[in-house]
Formats: sequence, structure tokens, C-alpha cells
Amino acid sequence: MSAADERRLAWAYLSTVGQGASRSLSAAIGEHGVVEVAEAVRQGGAGGRLSSRLAARAHLDTAAEDLGRLARSGGRLVTPDDEEWPAWHLLGFELLTTTVDADAPPLALWVWGERRIDELTDRSVGIVGTRAASGYGEHVTAQVAGDLAVDGWTVVSGAAFGVDAAAHRAALGVGGTTLAVLACGVDRAYPAAHSALLRSVSEAGLVVSEYPPGTTPARYRFLARNRLIAALSAGTVVVEAGWRSGARNTATWARRLGKPVMAVPGPVTSASSQGCHRMIREGEARLVGSAHEVVEECGPVLGRDDGRDALFRRDLDGLSRESSLVYEAFPATGSCTPSVLAESAGVPVEQVRAALSLLELDGLVVLVDGGWRRA
Amino acid sequence: MSAADERRLAWAYLSTVGQGASRSLSAAIGEHGVVEVAEAVRQGGAGGRLSSRLAARAHLDTAAEDLGRLARSGGRLVTPDDEEWPAWHLLGFELLTTTVDADAPPLALWVWGERRIDELTDRSVGIVGTRAASGYGEHVTAQVAGDLAVDGWTVVSGAAFGVDAAAHRAALGVGGTTLAVLACGVDRAYPAAHSALLRSVSEAGLVVSEYPPGTTPARYRFLARNRLIAALSAGTVVVEAGWRSGARNTATWARRLGKPVMAVPGPVTSASSQGCHRMIREGEARLVGSAHEVVEECGPVLGRDDGRDALFRRDLDGLSRESSLVYEAFPATGSCTPSVLAESAGVPVEQVRAALSLLELDGLVVLVDGGWRRA
Repeated sequence: MSAADERRLAWAYLSTVGQGASRSLSAAIGEHGVVEVAEAVRQGGAGGRLSSRLAARAHLDTAAEDLGRLARSGGRLVTPDDEEWPAWHLLGFELLTTTVDADAPPLALWVWGERRIDELTDRSVGIVGTRAASGYGEHVTAQVAGDLAVDGWTVVSGAAFGVDAAAHRAALGVGGTTLAVLACGVDRAYPAAHSALLRSVSEAGLVVSEYPPGTTPARYRFLARNRLIAALSAGTVVVEAGWRSGARNTATWARRLGKPVMAVPGPVTSASSQGCHRMIREGEARLVGSAHEVVEECGPVLGRDDGRDALFRRDLDGLSRESSLVYEAFPATGSCTPSVLAESAGVPVEQVRAALSLLELDGLVVLVDGGWRRA
Repeated sequence: MSAADERRLAWAYLSTVGQGASRSLSAAIGEHGVVEVAEAVRQGGAGGRLSSRLAARAHLDTAAEDLGRLARSGGRLVTPDDEEWPAWHLLGFELLTTTVDADAPPLALWVWGERRIDELTDRSVGIVGTRAASGYGEHVTAQVAGDLAVDGWTVVSGAAFGVDAAAHRAALGVGGTTLAVLACGVDRAYPAAHSALLRSVSEAGLVVSEYPPGTTPARYRFLARNRLIAALSAGTVVVEAGWRSGARNTATWARRLGKPVMAVPGPVTSASSQGCHRMIREGEARLVGSAHEVVEECGPVLGRDDGRDALFRRDLDGLSRESSLVYEAFPATGSCTPSVLAESAGVPVEQVRAALSLLELDGLVVLVDGGWRRA
């Protein structure tokens, strides 16, 4: 067995035993290595907090079997070892200062479909909303998601009834790409009525889950799933949501991860729009009514490199390449939005946001009245 | 003729000759007195900028006739001499630093109806919107205006077709009070189709104009009228507005005068809601969907005096009574909204806003991230 295969087996094993994200597990892997941690857990010898959490499931060594079965139906496990690992999207988790496991990035991602996850999420927008979508809500979802997909954006959602399904279908309908994040294994069609939809998504894009094959949906997994929809998107749009809605949970995740949150308004007489209105009113989401406005919010995503490397000769030791580019992109005076910085620095807006957060920690930039400026 | 009558005649004359607000005329009256300025204009001897502007109309001395005719149909001229002059509402004009005449407060107000204008505007909300209101727009207008009127708020609008008329009618329908500001003389029913509506408004509230009887509507008078709707209200709600809409002009006036601006969302597929969505999106208006949310925004209006006079013994020379009350109402640390200050100081929120602006000029308070704090 190659070292790579051994590592992938270790990730698969830990993903199965861990059942979701875990800060302590991630920390242990970072310190000791994935193969070593997997072996320690298998032996029941990981010690401390780790063992109590994992001991009960340590015997579930179905990794080889899971990987094999998934491979036969067109799936695979994507791990931080892989080039396609969406590392930039997950940077936001480093900004969360809590220690709860729910705030951890995914350990690894089980996917169904052939596309690379990093490419698919290079320009991606989360579109979520109530299962009980109105005719208006489905119509607007189809319009916004369809226009975004035509424009080359991947529509990320949760494959639920209502807004989610309308979003995936609109993207598929225009021959665009779409990504579904599930709260169960990617081999499980949930909801069952969407098995054909999920197959189409896997063909045109990806079906993704942090849970191993065979995992059944559970309430806490839906909440964890929402955080992945937010994490794998440049921004999240809530199309329709009741006063209390899971979509608002996704929006909260996007905000925590430093990504723009948008909401579509509707008639004030419609219960399905109350959650959106509430988010807009409370300043939790920006009002959007079209794909154009969504893109405005999510910013241009650029990868160009126009030779600004010369700028690094300035003494900004310890800054990453991106942070330096972003820092240098600031005007001499006044404040800037991440979108403007992205355009000016030639750095994808996701990376700009991540860089800004790190620059802020370093005291080099400050956020004033919604705009960033050099400190 | 009594001195009061002589002054009222002078105001009426200057209002007719001035045809709208004028900073220079207001300044001259402030310096020399209304009777003296009227006499000087009559004699063509006001000199300087004043004469060139007014000379052409100086012969139009229809004041006595206008006042007499208006009195016979239940109207009168309200001037800064009168106790009912809505001085607090007009304080915002003092904050405008431009010198254009459009930024001047009205010289005097011609009114039709028996109610006192200060009492009617003590708790008042402007509700405006497109003439081409949709069924949804008329429905929401009726709901919000009706609920506000039931709650004792005066509904202020412009008597135009569409949202304006729906707002007045809703207030009348629940036996509430309403105030119509016209861009023509109060003796002119404009639009003609609303003559019965205007009569009802005059009976339940007031029809108001800064133009003398007989004045016909004109485009610039509509813009000036919009500023009065904003000025005579604690806040302005735009229910429906196209992308370019006069209602947005009213909203801009409210903002310039330091009053809250609100907008009602609607379907993003409706052209009549585009202006509202734009204002909300750009942060020019706060999203509201009910009378309750409108009241939340406009703040409690209190007139109580709970003996805080003792506080004035602190040395805050030169501050008005209200400014001192507001200043003393601040918590030791942290920031406050005008509504909270109003409640805590026992000062109407309108006066709090005016006081804050003056305190800011004095460098005693600052506006930080949307909240006020002591400097």
C-alpha cells in the first residue's frame, strides 16, 4: 500500500470514527500526523479527551470497504492531502475563537461526482431557503440560481425540498454546475424523492458530505451541513425563510466565516419572507433581488498575477504572499471593500477576506464603518 | 389693526411675494422683523439680493384678500408667531449647511382645517409612494397607515394618486387623523379627483401648503412639498416606489433633516418595489413591514417632565433645556440611540435629534457606528 493510500485510509477511518468535525482530533492530526493518530485511536491509546470521545466507535474500521464501495459508484474521499481540498474556503474556521467541535472545519469530505471540489467552489454561491417555498420563492430562486449558473457560478445548496431543490434544478436546467451538501452519506438519497435530482447533481457537479457512506441524516448533522454550505460558497443567499428558519442558521455560519450574507425580500404579507425581512432589517443580510446583485456582493473572483511581486521587497516580514498583495492594494488613504481589494490585488476575494482577517490580527488593517483601511 | 394682525398680513404678503422658502428672506426677517421687511419689499427698497428676487412680485399685495377668503372656507395662515408653529419639526433645516433656497424652512404655512398643526404633528409619520401603486402596495399602505392612525399617529402624505391617497383614506377610515401637504394652494383641489378626499382630510386633520391660495401646482413645488412631508413627520415610510421616484426625494429630505427613513419591501419581480429595494439595499432606508416596526423606528414620543431640572445645576452653560436633558440622559459609558435618550430624558424624540445635532456642533457628543455617545 502506498503512503498516500495509507493516509487516505487513515482519514477515512478517522472520519468514520469521528462522525463529524472535531477540533481536538484536527489538532492531534496536525501535531502527530493522520496515520499516527488513526493508529493510536485504533489501539485505544489516543489518550486524554480524544479517547473518551472516540473509544466507543474505534472498532468501526470500515474505511477500506467504504472507499471501495464509493469508488465503484463514482465517489471518493477528498482530504487535506489532496490538491483539490478547498483550503481557502475553510480558512474562516481559523477565525473562530471558540473551542466547540461544531466550529471545526471538516476533517475530510466524501464526494460523489467527478469534478474537482476546488474548481467547483472557485466561484460558488450558496442559495438556501425554506422547504415550504411559495410559488414566488421558487420562481425567484430559479431566476437567481439560473442566472448565476449561466454566469459560471456553482450553485451550492442542501438538496432539501423547496428553495434548495429549485436552486439545484435551475443550475442543472441551464447546463450549469451545482453542488449539494448532505447531512447524510453521499450514498443515501435524502430526501428519497430527490434521488434522481442528486444523481443529476453528481453528474453536473458534486454531492458532498463530511459523513461516511451509510450515515443517516440527523438534526445535528443538518446544522453541521449548513455550515459547509456556507463554507463552500463565496456568499450565501437566503431566498425565502420563515421567522425561525434553518436557512438563517446557514446565514449565521456565512457571517461567522466572514462571507457575505444576502436575502431576497418578498411581500410583507407572506410568512415565507419574514425571516428574510428580519435578517435585512437587523443588518444580518444585504437585500438582493437579482443574480447581478449577488455577484456584486460576492465580488469578482480573479486569479491573475500581474507581476506585483516587486512590491514584496518592502519589509513586511511574516506576511503571506496574499496578505502582502492585499496590504499593498490599499489606497494611500480612505477605506476599501474586499471586492475592490480583490480586483486591485489580483487575489480572489475569498483569499482577500482571509488575508484581511489575518492582517487585522497583526494590527495592520482595521474595519471602520464597514470598510477596511490601513491601521 | 392689532399688531398681531399687522404681522400676519406681513407674513401673508411675504409668503405670496416670496413664493416658497427663501433663506435670504428668512434671514432678513430674523434681522429686521417681518413687518419691516414686508414694508421694505413693498417699497422696492429691500436692497441687495432680496430686491432682485422679489421686485417682480412686490406688487402682488393680495394678503388681506387671501386671508379673508381662506378664513371664510375654514382656513388660516400659521406663522412662526403662532403657538402652533411646528418649530421643533423645522429645526432640522438649521443643520443644512447649504445656502440654496430649497433648503430653507417654510416662511409660513397656509392651512385648511381646524386642528392645531403642532398637535397634529406631535406624533406623525409620512407615508408616501408611487402614484402607480400595485394592489399589493395599496393593501400594505392601508394596513400600515390604518394601524398607525388607530395608534394615534397622524398620517402625513401628499394627496397624490396611489400610495398617498391610500394612506390618507386608511387614516380617515379608522377615524384617525391625517395631514395632506399640497404643492398648490389649499383652496385648489389637486388632483381634482381628490377634492372630496381633501375635504375629508381638512375635517379630520389639516390640508397644508406653503403656497398662498390660488397657487397652481408646478414641478418645483412638488419637490418643495416633499421636503415639508418629511419635515412635518417623525419619520418617512416609502411603501412602493419605482427605480426613479418622487418618494425617494421625500426620503432624501427626511434623511437630510435627521429623521428616520423606512421602506416596505415587496416582490423583487414588481417594478413598483424597485425603488424601495434600492433604498434598503443602499442603506438609505430601513426595512419595515408593519406599523409596529414603523413606531419602533420613529421612537416613543414623550412629553413628561420628571423633575430632572436639578441636573441643570451642573455647569453646562449655553445649552438649551432640552440639550441639557439629553446630555444628562447619556449613560456613563457606551452609546445610545435617540429613542433610548428620548425615553430616558423625557424629551420627545424629535427634540432629542435636534438637541443631539446641536450638542454635536458643540463637540459634546459624537456619532459612532450609528450610536451617540458623549465625546
